[in-house]
Amino acid sequence: MMVATLVASTALGQQPARHQQVLQLVEEHSAHFSATSKTIWDYAELGYHEEKSSSLLRRELEAAGFRVQSTVADEPTAFVATYGQGEPVIGILGEFDALPGLSQAATPDRSPVVANAPGHACGHNLLGSGAALAAVALKEYMERNHVTGTLRYFGTPAEEGGDGKVYMLRAGLFRDVDVVLQWHPASENVVANGGMLAMNSARFLFHGVAAHAAMAPERGRSALDAVMLMGTGIEYLREHVASNSRIHYIITNGGAAPNVVPDTAELYLYARNPSLPVLAEVWNRILKIGQGAALMTETTLDVKDIGGTANVLPNDALAKVAQRNLEEVGGFRYSAEERHFAEQLQKSLPAGGAGDLDSTALIQPLRRPDPNAAAASTDVGDVSWNIPTIGFETATFVPGVVAHTWQAAASAGMSIGQKGMIVAAKALAITGADLFADRQLVLDAKADFQQQLKGRTYVSAIPVGQIPPLNYRDK
Amino acid sequence: MMVATLVASTALGQQPARHQQVLQLVEEHSAHFSATSKTIWDYAELGYHEEKSSSLLRRELEAAGFRVQSTVADEPTAFVATYGQGEPVIGILGEFDALPGLSQAATPDRSPVVANAPGHACGHNLLGSGAALAAVALKEYMERNHVTGTLRYFGTPAEEGGDGKVYMLRAGLFRDVDVVLQWHPASENVVANGGMLAMNSARFLFHGVAAHAAMAPERGRSALDAVMLMGTGIEYLREHVASNSRIHYIITNGGAAPNVVPDTAELYLYARNPSLPVLAEVWNRILKIGQGAALMTETTLDVKDIGGTANVLPNDALAKVAQRNLEEVGGFRYSAEERHFAEQLQKSLPAGGAGDLDSTALIQPLRRPDPNAAAASTDVGDVSWNIPTIGFETATFVPGVVAHTWQAAASAGMSIGQKGMIVAAKALAITGADLFADRQLVLDAKADFQQQLKGRTYVSAIPVGQIPPLNYRDK
Amino acid sequence: MMVATLVASTALGQQPARHQQVLQLVEEHSAHFSATSKTIWDYAELGYHEEKSSSLLRRELEAAGFRVQSTVADEPTAFVATYGQGEPVIGILGEFDALPGLSQAATPDRSPVVANAPGHACGHNLLGSGAALAAVALKEYMERNHVTGTLRYFGTPAEEGGDGKVYMLRAGLFRDVDVVLQWHPASENVVANGGMLAMNSARFLFHGVAAHAAMAPERGRSALDAVMLMGTGIEYLREHVASNSRIHYIITNGGAAPNVVPDTAELYLYARNPSLPVLAEVWNRILKIGQGAALMTETTLDVKDIGGTANVLPNDALAKVAQRNLEEVGGFRYSAEERHFAEQLQKSLPAGGAGDLDSTALIQPLRRPDPNAAAASTDVGDVSWNIPTIGFETATFVPGVVAHTWQAAASAGMSIGQKGMIVAAKALAITGADLFADRQLVLDAKADFQQQLKGRTYVSAIPVGQIPPLNYRDK
Amino acid sequence: MMVATLVASTALGQQPARHQQVLQLVEEHSAHFSATSKTIWDYAELGYHEEKSSSLLRRELEAAGFRVQSTVADEPTAFVATYGQGEPVIGILGEFDALPGLSQAATPDRSPVVANAPGHACGHNLLGSGAALAAVALKEYMERNHVTGTLRYFGTPAEEGGDGKVYMLRAGLFRDVDVVLQWHPASENVVANGGMLAMNSARFLFHGVAAHAAMAPERGRSALDAVMLMGTGIEYLREHVASNSRIHYIITNGGAAPNVVPDTAELYLYARNPSLPVLAEVWNRILKIGQGAALMTETTLDVKDIGGTANVLPNDALAKVAQRNLEEVGGFRYSAEERHFAEQLQKSLPAGGAGDLDSTALIQPLRRPDPNAAAASTDVGDVSWNIPTIGFETATFVPGVVAHTWQAAASAGMSIGQKGMIVAAKALAITGADLFADRQLVLDAKADFQQQLKGRTYVSAIPVGQIPPLNYRDK
Repeated sequence: MMVATLVASTALGQQPARHQQVLQLVEEHSAHFSATSKTIWDYAELGYHEEKSSSLLRRELEAAGFRVQSTVADEPTAFVATYGQGEPVIGILGEFDALPGLSQAATPDRSPVVANAPGHACGHNLLGSGAALAAVALKEYMERNHVTGTLRYFGTPAEEGGDGKVYMLRAGLFRDVDVVLQWHPASENVVANGGMLAMNSARFLFHGVAAHAAMAPERGRSALDAVMLMGTGIEYLREHVASNSRIHYIITNGGAAPNVVPDTAELYLYARNPSLPVLAEVWNRILKIGQGAALMTETTLDVKDIGGTANVLPNDALAKVAQRNLEEVGGFRYSAEERHFAEQLQKSLPAGGAGDLDSTALIQPLRRPDPNAAAASTDVGDVSWNIPTIGFETATFVPGVVAHTWQAAASAGMSIGQKGMIVAAKALAITGADLFADRQLVLDAKADFQQQLKGRTYVSAIPVGQIPPLNYRDK
Repeated sequence: MMVATLVASTALGQQPARHQQVLQLVEEHSAHFSATSKTIWDYAELGYHEEKSSSLLRRELEAAGFRVQSTVADEPTAFVATYGQGEPVIGILGEFDALPGLSQAATPDRSPVVANAPGHACGHNLLGSGAALAAVALKEYMERNHVTGTLRYFGTPAEEGGDGKVYMLRAGLFRDVDVVLQWHPASENVVANGGMLAMNSARFLFHGVAAHAAMAPERGRSALDAVMLMGTGIEYLREHVASNSRIHYIITNGGAAPNVVPDTAELYLYARNPSLPVLAEVWNRILKIGQGAALMTETTLDVKDIGGTANVLPNDALAKVAQRNLEEVGGFRYSAEERHFAEQLQKSLPAGGAGDLDSTALIQPLRRPDPNAAAASTDVGDVSWNIPTIGFETATFVPGVVAHTWQAAASAGMSIGQKGMIVAAKALAITGADLFADRQLVLDAKADFQQQLKGRTYVSAIPVGQIPPLNYRDK
Repeated sequence: MMVATLVASTALGQQPARHQQVLQLVEEHSAHFSATSKTIWDYAELGYHEEKSSSLLRRELEAAGFRVQSTVADEPTAFVATYGQGEPVIGILGEFDALPGLSQAATPDRSPVVANAPGHACGHNLLGSGAALAAVALKEYMERNHVTGTLRYFGTPAEEGGDGKVYMLRAGLFRDVDVVLQWHPASENVVANGGMLAMNSARFLFHGVAAHAAMAPERGRSALDAVMLMGTGIEYLREHVASNSRIHYIITNGGAAPNVVPDTAELYLYARNPSLPVLAEVWNRILKIGQGAALMTETTLDVKDIGGTANVLPNDALAKVAQRNLEEVGGFRYSAEERHFAEQLQKSLPAGGAGDLDSTALIQPLRRPDPNAAAASTDVGDVSWNIPTIGFETATFVPGVVAHTWQAAASAGMSIGQKGMIVAAKALAITGADLFADRQLVLDAKADFQQQLKGRTYVSAIPVGQIPPLNYRDK
Repeated sequence: MMVATLVASTALGQQPARHQQVLQLVEEHSAHFSATSKTIWDYAELGYHEEKSSSLLRRELEAAGFRVQSTVADEPTAFVATYGQGEPVIGILGEFDALPGLSQAATPDRSPVVANAPGHACGHNLLGSGAALAAVALKEYMERNHVTGTLRYFGTPAEEGGDGKVYMLRAGLFRDVDVVLQWHPASENVVANGGMLAMNSARFLFHGVAAHAAMAPERGRSALDAVMLMGTGIEYLREHVASNSRIHYIITNGGAAPNVVPDTAELYLYARNPSLPVLAEVWNRILKIGQGAALMTETTLDVKDIGGTANVLPNDALAKVAQRNLEEVGGFRYSAEERHFAEQLQKSLPAGGAGDLDSTALIQPLRRPDPNAAAASTDVGDVSWNIPTIGFETATFVPGVVAHTWQAAASAGMSIGQKGMIVAAKALAITGADLFADRQLVLDAKADFQQQLKGRTYVSAIPVGQIPPLNYRDK
């Protein structure tokens, strides 16, 4: 059986000398970037509207000596910060967008800072800051040791449904990158080697004919009827797609007034599957259902705001290095105060939902993606289909807390989240150092990448030429 | 206010001399054709399988001196019986099919003769026999008085959903007919001048792909899903068609076994509206719903066994004559025994459903069709769009009894039904005599007919070239 | 056949002397109240928010010598203006609320004053002003002629879905009223003697359990599923209610984000039928459908903001007087300019939708309500179940224009609408004068009222104790 | 990585001496029971109607010296055949029912023997005969070697949806059994240690009120509407149950005639999940959906013919023995003729569906049940919750062929199926001999069984007191 591993102190002797130097540099900047993460947590800006958060990170990286390119890929809050030159080119991903309606104080009970306002319930305040911490430390190490190569920090907006990275890929910003490193807040320490669900999304806007619903309903063609029938058609589809698919929707326009046959109505839908080609087939059938609903109701259909992200491709060559490094860094333990906070917060979790508080000190074994596991989606997936990519997850959330909850937002706004962030920054930084030090690692990562693709082609569901949906958070 | 009219005895003096002769002849044959009606009631044969019933009526008409043409229009049980020659050509319609599942003894309580067997719950045993009674009497009158003209009895099978008359029209059997007379059993005495609902029908058979429903439902394409979605689509249509439309369906194939994704499934649907062109639009939308359901489920759709009948066009010129003649004939009164039977039977009617037993003696005033009235459908409609047509309804059913119930079947199998039938035969026969006697009546009927059509064109929903669905009663 | 009637000049000689005086007084105040109607048209305030419109009318009536009671029945914009004392007590109804989204300039083409802003597409600016014009003229007549009796103008807010009059009835404000007179803008001149559809409305708010739609949909209980199933259940209901029923709904909350199982969702529904008791049965079945949807989805249902209005009871005694008086007043003719406006505007109507422009000069014959006619709903209905009520409709809208369209708003904002308003004011005023003059008319109205009720009891669908939904226009 | 294992010849030396004797006895009777399997294949009798098949197996076992108890548990075709006495009591399960509509000749192309007739597409002809072959051989071995203990062959009817074994369990027929051995035809050789899906089934019969669908649909309460809404409700449920659940249904009564509002309609539904308690929760929600549909339509619901089987509990102690023994027996190879047959037949499989023909020679490694694997259901599950149970699957079907297809029926009717059957019989027989020889194995099996249950209680979904649904195959 596979079990989680404590940091083997005996292993420390075997670590490369560069690791110690890099880890030391991360430690030095930790307090500063913890504060940065708190500031962004306070900003809590929604996707494509992360003006202050993006600006803060840009300024930090500029101050540290990076060259910054702003407003890239038609995304006002996207940026690329570069240090060094020549090969290899190593990228680190940063995110900083918040989630609507999840405003929460850094307290162990439900206390919105501002009711219904956004909150950092996915910990992207930590993500962007921790990635910057790793980048700054690694850059100082490179500078001191005259390391050849290019280090790039990608400031990627609107991960939560805005597909920011996809447009950055399209703009060619990743073209010369050899390996991408990333991390994400979680409730355990583990190497993230592939997985997640490929996802497509779109708004299905139907147009009908309005009529007085009491006086002349027979003259109306109801766009809401089309939405209702599309929804019902989707439900009938569920049985006949692979059961690890996920399809979910809301109705974003359900008519204006009961006494008027609605001439517009809209359904906003996501579909997901661990496999990009399987998802493409499912998506095609969803489109047919929309068309069928229009045909049934004599309405017309406009498929809008199409989004899409790929699943994350694993990279076993990089995963091996990442696992070794994460085990070297090791986890962390709560202070008495943090433990008290965590215990209080766990009381709000559903029965059986609380995890072991001591598990923050453990590193989980390396595992392959399970196609039937519960999972979400990320635009890191698209990066991973274009560049060898590896990631970390660290225990920034109190064990048992899941992302997109107020408990996650609370954890991300205090020292527990920040301790997890530092673990991630260390693992990222020493892995980056290894990649700069050992060209064979980069070659192995590329070979493994080609092996994973084996004949499969990356195709984004987002139509060619579509511009970033900067207002996708509007209802 | 309009009120029903008792036979005005003073009016009798004004009736043409020919009427008395014709009425006398009807009386003479009444007992015989009452017996005929009882024999056909016993046969209770379903549409297109009325071998014995059709044969009996053919033999009666042949015996009376008609020339009979059998198995016309590809319908084994259709026939045309003709007497005389030259103009005008007057047709009388006869029907003789029973309804499934409505077997009933001639008793005032629910007593099937054979459980679930067919029964004459629409009184077509009376219809065919009464029409024959009128034809035989009228023929004798013509013969005795050397009346010029042609009298035709149309033996029309499968009125109940088989559209027998439509195929007879297509075969040209009505081509030279000037006026058509018809009648139908009812629970009051009234001239039937237009009305009824145009109706289309079809089986919507979907084809999908079978799969083990537990092992691999994602490989299946469910024809039942298509049926479910088509049904749901129809429900959403209801609000957006004229509210005097009627659409109803059953599922005639809902899958073979729960653990197999159904590769075939079928929905059998009727749609109706008082207006043929409105119905055509509704039908077109129903077809789209079927296509939409197929598109939604990746199945294919086969629209089968398409049926269609028109609404009945009024003819005010004929209606005036018919009303006068029906008032001349007058209604009838129950014997003490019949009254007892009727009172017993009325106890089984829903609260408030019993009608006035004395109303059988009354003639209702002439009325125009109400497009919002409760109504059924008949293939007499198609005849009425091609030839000037007028009809009678007589009180063959105990007042308050509606067609297609066991109470109707009971009434149709005993003297109450037969008394009503004789009233109808008399009204038909004297109206026929009037049409032979007064060419202007025929000309007026034709003029009124053209006026009714005024630019509208009769188009049957039944595809050109479709043969009669002789097995439409199979499930 | 019934045909519309031009003012018979010969009839004018027979009119009571008081009529001439009253008509003269209406004429005198016509220009002033036409201007008032234009001001309210400019205000275009939504139901329960008619602060300026209500205030303007109150001030006018106060200035004319009425005693005004403001903010009655917990409705800030409701008021009662009274003149005189003693019996009989005659009420005149005034409305003044606009409709959302129908802002429109007084031009014959579609030109919103402010996009998506409210507009007077039901002509209530005319309604309230015309009723005030009648009241002021009638009051002056009473004063000059020392007429005994009480005249009351009811300022009734939120007719468009807010049921303002129902709460005023409950507050006892109509308790001593003997007869109610009312009018409504239309596209012809006709006495409105009963009709309209009784209507119930409510918000069906479902509560479920939120969950991450990709990570753990099985933990969610979707309130949106309940809304979808309730909607579908309603569609299945349509076939099995009387076909002159109307049921229509929108979805006012269809979920917050596609990746979250919605824990709240809401459907806002109206149901209507010409018969109050039939509607009560239909409503009961709608409630069952809501409960069934909750049961199916393990959600809970909260039926909120219940509204209800009755159909309008006819009063044949009052209708006779009203018809005579409307014929006496007669219609009106367009100026060349108005005719041009009307012709331009008619171009925007659907094919076949334009009416005869000369018909504004005609008075339609008195007719009884047709239970199958196209109709809307009004809270005048509730008044009519409590007090003998009669109404007028006048040709304020260009013939062929229907209420709740921009064309109606355009007509209501210029001289065509104002000319129609003056016709109505005249008919109201002389009818009021007749009721004050002839006590037998009041007694006849009351006798007819009792006859109409014959054993039926008025029950409002609005729960006892519910306060006016002052924010019902919020989504 | 786990790989399939060829018979290790080196292992043969380690097999107990008794194995050789038992294997020899199986060989001796193989031809005879192969012929028996072919006879039952020809009979192809449906569940609870396996009169000839059951009788043949009973006669064989009686002839071999077993004491036979017929018509047990109210099932005419169930029986128990016993040899020996005392402990331990070892049971072997036999099945013999065919599947509707899958008649097929033993040819590699689709050739029904009789169109739409039943066929042995699940190989139960082999199952019952192979189990009898094992029992007869084992009995002879016991007799010759004076082995103490009781051997029971359970003739279990109607496995395919009739839940025959559940009623036999209830009748106490398994009360003193210590270990149950079973096997099932498949397309590979593998120990079946738990798995399968627990399953509930029922007919949901709705009762409404009939009415003429054109004349008075508002008087009807449609049972078909309830079926449609229940089906739709089920579709909405799918998203919110664990995604390894399976729910599928057909409509067994969808109304009698389109022009009659259906007063009865029926939906026949199966629900499955690998976990019995999870299934119980899902089932409860399905019942609520049925009740909700009845509430929505004012119909009543009768839940009939409730069926239920448990998932199969693993038994690791027995599995270890079974794996060792199956590897000892080894697989088999095709003759040239069989290979040709198999290659021809594989051409009819879907693209990518054909398996490796050489795999019939391999034994698959022991594996634990995967809760997300494709699976079916069996009433062996209920046995396994009451008695320690282990099973085998052998390659009776051409690799790539799945059960319940004509290809499976073809394979089961010729030598390929019979060769697989003999492998199974050998594995069963030597495992039985081991259990008689080594009491510790039985004790270990019982300890493991208790461990598996650990606090869980077996509850069948079939209502207490329900008698076997002998006519469940009627539509």
